[in-house]
Parts: sequence; C-alpha cells; structure tokens
Amino acid sequence: MTGWWCEYAAIDGVVHRGVTITARDGRFTAIDPDTAPSADATRLAGLTIPGLANTHSHAFHRVLRSRTQADRGSFWTWRDVMYAAATRLDPDTYHRLARAVFAEMALAGQTAVGEFHYVHHQPDGTPYDDQNQMGHALLAAAEEAGIRITLLDTLYLHGGLDAGGYQPIEGPQRRYADTDAEQWAQRVDDLSPGTNQLIGGAIHSIRAVDPDSIAMAAESTRGFGAPLHAHVSEQRTENDACLAVLGGTPLTVLDRSGALGPGFTAVHATHVCADDVRRLSSSGSTVSMCPTTERDLGDGIGPALEFAEAGIPIHLGSDSHATIDHFVEARSIELHERLRSERRGLHTAPELLAMATVNGQRALGWESAGRLAVGDRADLVAIRLDSERTAGSSGEHAIEAAIFAATTADISTVVVDGTTIVADHHHQRVDVGAELRASIEELIP
Amino acid sequence: MTGWWCEYAAIDGVVHRGVTITARDGRFTAIDPDTAPSADATRLAGLTIPGLANTHSHAFHRVLRSRTQADRGSFWTWRDVMYAAATRLDPDTYHRLARAVFAEMALAGQTAVGEFHYVHHQPDGTPYDDQNQMGHALLAAAEEAGIRITLLDTLYLHGGLDAGGYQPIEGPQRRYADTDAEQWAQRVDDLSPGTNQLIGGAIHSIRAVDPDSIAMAAESTRGFGAPLHAHVSEQRTENDACLAVLGGTPLTVLDRSGALGPGFTAVHATHVCADDVRRLSSSGSTVSMCPTTERDLGDGIGPALEFAEAGIPIHLGSDSHATIDHFVEARSIELHERLRSERRGLHTAPELLAMATVNGQRALGWESAGRLAVGDRADLVAIRLDSERTAGSSGEHAIEAAIFAATTADISTVVVDGTTIVADHHHQRVDVGAELRASIEELIP
Repeated sequence: MTGWWCEYAAIDGVVHRGVTITARDGRFTAIDPDTAPSADATRLAGLTIPGLANTHSHAFHRVLRSRTQADRGSFWTWRDVMYAAATRLDPDTYHRLARAVFAEMALAGQTAVGEFHYVHHQPDGTPYDDQNQMGHALLAAAEEAGIRITLLDTLYLHGGLDAGGYQPIEGPQRRYADTDAEQWAQRVDDLSPGTNQLIGGAIHSIRAVDPDSIAMAAESTRGFGAPLHAHVSEQRTENDACLAVLGGTPLTVLDRSGALGPGFTAVHATHVCADDVRRLSSSGSTVSMCPTTERDLGDGIGPALEFAEAGIPIHLGSDSHATIDHFVEARSIELHERLRSERRGLHTAPELLAMATVNGQRALGWESAGRLAVGDRADLVAIRLDSERTAGSSGEHAIEAAIFAATTADISTVVVDGTTIVADHHHQRVDVGAELRASIEELIP
Repeated sequence: MTGWWCEYAAIDGVVHRGVTITARDGRFTAIDPDTAPSADATRLAGLTIPGLANTHSHAFHRVLRSRTQADRGSFWTWRDVMYAAATRLDPDTYHRLARAVFAEMALAGQTAVGEFHYVHHQPDGTPYDDQNQMGHALLAAAEEAGIRITLLDTLYLHGGLDAGGYQPIEGPQRRYADTDAEQWAQRVDDLSPGTNQLIGGAIHSIRAVDPDSIAMAAESTRGFGAPLHAHVSEQRTENDACLAVLGGTPLTVLDRSGALGPGFTAVHATHVCADDVRRLSSSGSTVSMCPTTERDLGDGIGPALEFAEAGIPIHLGSDSHATIDHFVEARSIELHERLRSERRGLHTAPELLAMATVNGQRALGWESAGRLAVGDRADLVAIRLDSERTAGSSGEHAIEAAIFAATTADISTVVVDGTTIVADHHHQRVDVGAELRASIEELIP
C-alpha cells in the first residue's frame, strides 16, 4: 500500500485540508480529509488535484512550437508547414519525439493523453511491414513516459472537400490514408495496446471522410466499445464546403451517419450553430476544446458557455502543443469568454478543473479516473502554493490559484496509476528538455 | 568592469550568437557578437534580451490574485473588492507588499516599473505627517527589490462621472483624493526619488479628473519633464458618460486639455475610435496595453493592430497583476488579435519584444534603456532554451521561443543597471514567495 498526506486536496471541486490518501494496485483505497500527517505517508505540499487529461494531441506538432510563429498567414498556410514536418517522421524518430512530448505532458500533470493519430504509413502511402508500426511507436512512447494513452487511430480517406466534392489524396496526405473504412477497422483491430492503454477511433473530419465511411467507422468503433473523436467545424471554410456539398453542417452530417452519442467527442466545435449544440447535447456527446491552439491558429472563440449551459461536458486538449499547460487551457476557456462577452466569472474554477480532469479522463475511455475518490485510478498532481505565482492565495482559494495563477512550473509531484512519475518537478525516467531537443533536431536539423 | 558572454542575444530584434557584453557604472560599454567566451565573463546560457518594462502597475492589486476569480460580475463589482483591499493599506504594510511584488517583477525579468499610485492618504482622507509617506514606501520597496521605478503619482479629484456630472469623492476613494490639481502638483514636487528612480504624473481617468484639472496637471507634469499617464476608455460606460457630459471621447477631452503629446501614455485604450487613434498618432503619444488584466476584467480586446499601423508605440503593463509575466502579455497582444481577426502573424515576435522592452522603458522616462546597445543602461534578462517549454527551438527562432513559448520560470539571470538581481531564478535579496505570502496574509487574514 502507498500513502500520501496532502496539505490541501481538491475533492469534487471542494478544497479540503490535511487529506490522507492511500492506494493499492493503482487504485485509491481511502481519501480522508482533516487528518494529521502519518510518518509513513509521502507529504505533498500545496494543493493536490486529480490527474489532468489531455484529450486532443498530435504529438509531432511539438516540432512546430516557436518555429511557426515567424510566419504570417492562416490556418491553411500553417497546415503546409505541419504537413512538411509530418513527411519527415519514421517509426524510430516518431518514437523518440513522442516519448519526449508525452514526458513533457507528465511534467505538466497530464496522466492520460488522447493521441489523434493519422501518420500511419510510409511517406508514399505504402504500409510498414507492421502496418501499425507508427501506432505501436506511440504506444511504446507513452508507456516509457509513464502516462496512459488512448490511441485514437484516425480514418483519413480523402484529400479535402470543396464545391467539386471530395478531392483525391495527394502529397503528404498519402501516408495518412487507408484504403477504406473496412481496411482501417481491420488495421485498428490489430493494434496491441499495453497495460493502461486503450484504442479508440477517430474520423479525421468531414473533409477527409465521406458520410458512408463515417457510418462504417462509427459502427465498428462502437463495436470495440471505444471512444470516437472527430475534428468538427474548426474553420469556417469547412462549414461552407460541408453545407454546399453535403447539405448540412459537419455535426449534421456526423449525426446522420450515426457518429454522435455517448463516447463521441467533437474536437474544437468552434464554429457551430444552435442546432449543432442541440445535437451534441441530446446525443450525450462531449466537446474537446483546445483554446491555446485555437487562438494560435486564429480559429476563433468557441461557444463554451453555450456548451456548458446545454449540459455538454467540455474537456481540454493541447492539440498543436503551442503550449502544454492545462492550467492555461482551462483558464483560457473562461478568459476567452470574458473577451467575447465582456463579463466575468462565467465558468467557475471548480468547473474548469473538472474540464481538465474528470471530463477528459472519461472522454478518453477511463471511466474511473479524474477524481480523488475510492476506487478511482490513483493519479495525483501536487501544485505548489508558495511560488511567486501562487503565493498569497489562501487554502480556500487554492483551486482558483491553480486554475488562474499557476503554470506547469508549479507542479511538484505527479503520480500515475499509483506510480510516482514526477518528483520535485523532475521526470523520474526521461530528461525531458534534452530529449525534446535531440528528437526535434534530428527531424529539423 | 563587468562582463557577460551570451550564447544568444537579441540585438535590435535580431538573434546573434556568442555575444560578449561589458558594462561600467551601470551602462553598456561594448556589445560584440560572434565571440568566444572569455574566462572572466559570466556565461549566460540561452537567449539574453534587454530589460523588460512593466509600464502599468497597481502593486496592491496583487492581493486580489486568485481571490477575485471566485466572483461573477463585471469590472465594476471587481472594483468593489479592489477598493476594500485598498482601505486596509498603511505605509508599513504597503511597503512590505510592494517590495514583494516588485521582487516578483524582478524574477519576471522586469527591470523597471511604472507604478500608477493613488493610495495617498489615510483612509479618511487626512494626509500622513509626511504627505508622501505612501509614495516613499513604494520608492523604498522598488529600491530594495532591485528594480527601477517611475512613480506615476496620480491626480484623483472626483468620485465618478455620470449623466449628472462629476460625483463627490466618497468612501474608499477619500484616501485617493487631493484637494485640487495645484495642491497635487505641490505634493508631487516634494517627493524624493532615489538613484535610478523617476517621478511622473498621472491623471486617474476622465471619471476622476475634470478637464480644467487635466490641463493644470498636464502643464505641471510637463514642467517637470516627466511622463504623464492616464487610464483611457477601459470600459464602454466611461465613454458613454464622457460623450454625454463632456461632448467627446476621453481622448478628445484629454487632447483639448493639452494632455496628449510625447511623454503621454494612454493606458488600456481598449474602446477607442478611429479619431482617437489619429489623435494618439499625430500627438506622438503611446499606449500601455495590459492584455492579461483586460481579459481578466472582461474589458475587451484593444485595437493593437490599428495602433501599430498608425505608428503608435505600444508597451505593456501587468496592471492588476492577475499574472506578472511579460512573455504572456506580449504574446497575448498577438493572440487576442488572432481571436478577433481569425488571422495569424499580425505582430512579429521582434515587434512584440520591443513592446515589452524599449517601448516601455521610454514610456517610463528611461530614454537609454531597453536595448542591448553601447551607452544604454546595463539591463540583461537571460532566458533558458533548454526547459520543457523552450527546448527544441533553434537559435534562429529564439525570439519566437521567448515570446510565444517561455514563461517567467524560464528566466535564469536578471541584471539591472549592471547589478545581478536574479541568478538561477533566485532573487538575491528577497525570498519572494515567503514575502508575498506574509505581506498578503497580514492584509487579508
């Protein structure tokens, strides 16, 4: 049995003092507030929260951080640079890069990642001998970095959608594409996840997957009992093409094809209408918002308040990894709303914390994770309240301090499934800065 | 003579390698790129930039960080909480708090602060025996924290402006108010700045100062040769009242009263019209934008692109200190524009760096500061490029890494006027976290 004593801990959005926590076999066995520290418990100073979940990641985008800030242009010119980076990956370089990126997530308190994986094949589209070699590289990377992964293997069939209909796959997209939804489903079925790893499905977008293939993918993913994610309405031009060719919004098309429902996550959902919100709500779907990417790419401000008011669970992804900091993601949900509405306090700090933790863990298929509760997975993230950023906040306002003032630099300890992965802000297995540098420099010399 | 060797350094917005820098008597005597490190030079790893300038600060607002995030409401309900904090200050507690806050700024690489100071008198409005006792507490605090200060002593005469005209001072405002502009000017003339300290003037806002008093304050401040700052159009209601009662926008009123011109800074300028922008531009005025405060308070997104296109220098303040991180302020100028315009790359990283450094130093009256240039004040800020946030960016993209990816946690060394104030991210004189906590807890038990 392992035990911790937390100066403060956030239990279901409420701060408690002196919380003794025990775990066995990676699950919490007791959560007891108002206790004195026992001699054999590891003392966690500051505020302890559940494990953060990063529900939308493209690990290789990490190579673009800082570099693409020298560019002007739009989402679409940024995508050209991203495509160029994708062409350089092979299973070994991708493994090293992803291991460093997932270790950066661990330092940021993220105990689970949803990797939206579409760089499947060799650059010319030929499958590797193990047709899942890239996916297996990602699974190995997450295991070595010490975090859980839900590999959202992504169906990608077409090169785009415009007034002329679906465009053929070309250039850098060749390595993303499978033959059809059936072949994709067979390939996904062959993936071999490890302990604390899940396989899920993803529909890249209505730009890359036609309605019939969406329907087949949705059916087979549901057959696995797995989460299904899709990029939805990140850009206005996607909506325009979808309306013109398919006669409805992307969410209408996904709904008609049977994709919506419990287990479905709409990623971004930035430019959605009231009817789209109703479809998400009535189907029991959820939304992965990625505010630091959405502002970086000039996508716009998504309707987080409308989602919350409709009872749609919001969770958070760092997507392009312009930054990996779920405190920044969470506060940006609220702060972007303030910029849009010129009102304060639309989402409370405990609500934002739930987006960053339990909502996200569930959207990745980890039903018993993201809470400090007996029986849940034993994930802990301890946040210093004595840094120059957080000092002076009372225990009473510790969740507000974490969500609105802390950065990942304030994270001292991270425990995943009962194992200490980060201590004193040092990853116990990976030299994160050095591995990031080496793995990026071998891809972009 | 003191010397440093910088792995990379940003000289006028361009990254150079292997830069040897020397200083004597607090001024740079040589800046030489492409050199090998000499044995007696202090080695600065990563990217070295000039000193950051925080051009809009209310030091005591630091007590509100995290605490006000539990509230809903508007700027105006937030102001009630801020007023309550202001009533608790006395010269000793203010000195301790400001010393800790200015030391936090030093950790953040800020070598100069513009303190917009209006908590002058005892809570009932009676002057202290030294009528500048609060101002002198702030000057002492900055000296002890090791950063330069421009004390922007603030004229505050009225309780507000509405359709009925100017309202009387009441409640918490009593300690802010002077009798009239003449008495204010005499009091300001009695302030005793120390070495590397300046006194400037401020007009709180058109809500608190009538046009005739603005004219007197502008004339006397210009007589001192000092900077003059004013809150301008932070909220739409301020514009509405000003138009209704004074027949023009706040900037029109300030212009008619002779306040605009070189040395004048409009703080916020969030809700300004095209004519306001022309007045700022043609008069040679500058703007202090405070994006992390403006989003926190739901003020809105100011027209940074219009300012830049009109040639108006933008500089940056952390204002309410929801965060103290000029990398975040600088990137937020660009990222808020991206949210507004759905376009990328409107301000380049070197332009954003200039806002955070040289533009700000000049707006605080430090004409030879904010650049790595012979004769300039010897301020240096060294930023790690090997952290999980910054690793993987090449030297070529080091300014992009600093502005878009770094946080203050990446700052290792800070030199102010030739003296090392921060080394290995530790303030050499102040235990910042502990002093913040102690000084805030004595004000808000």
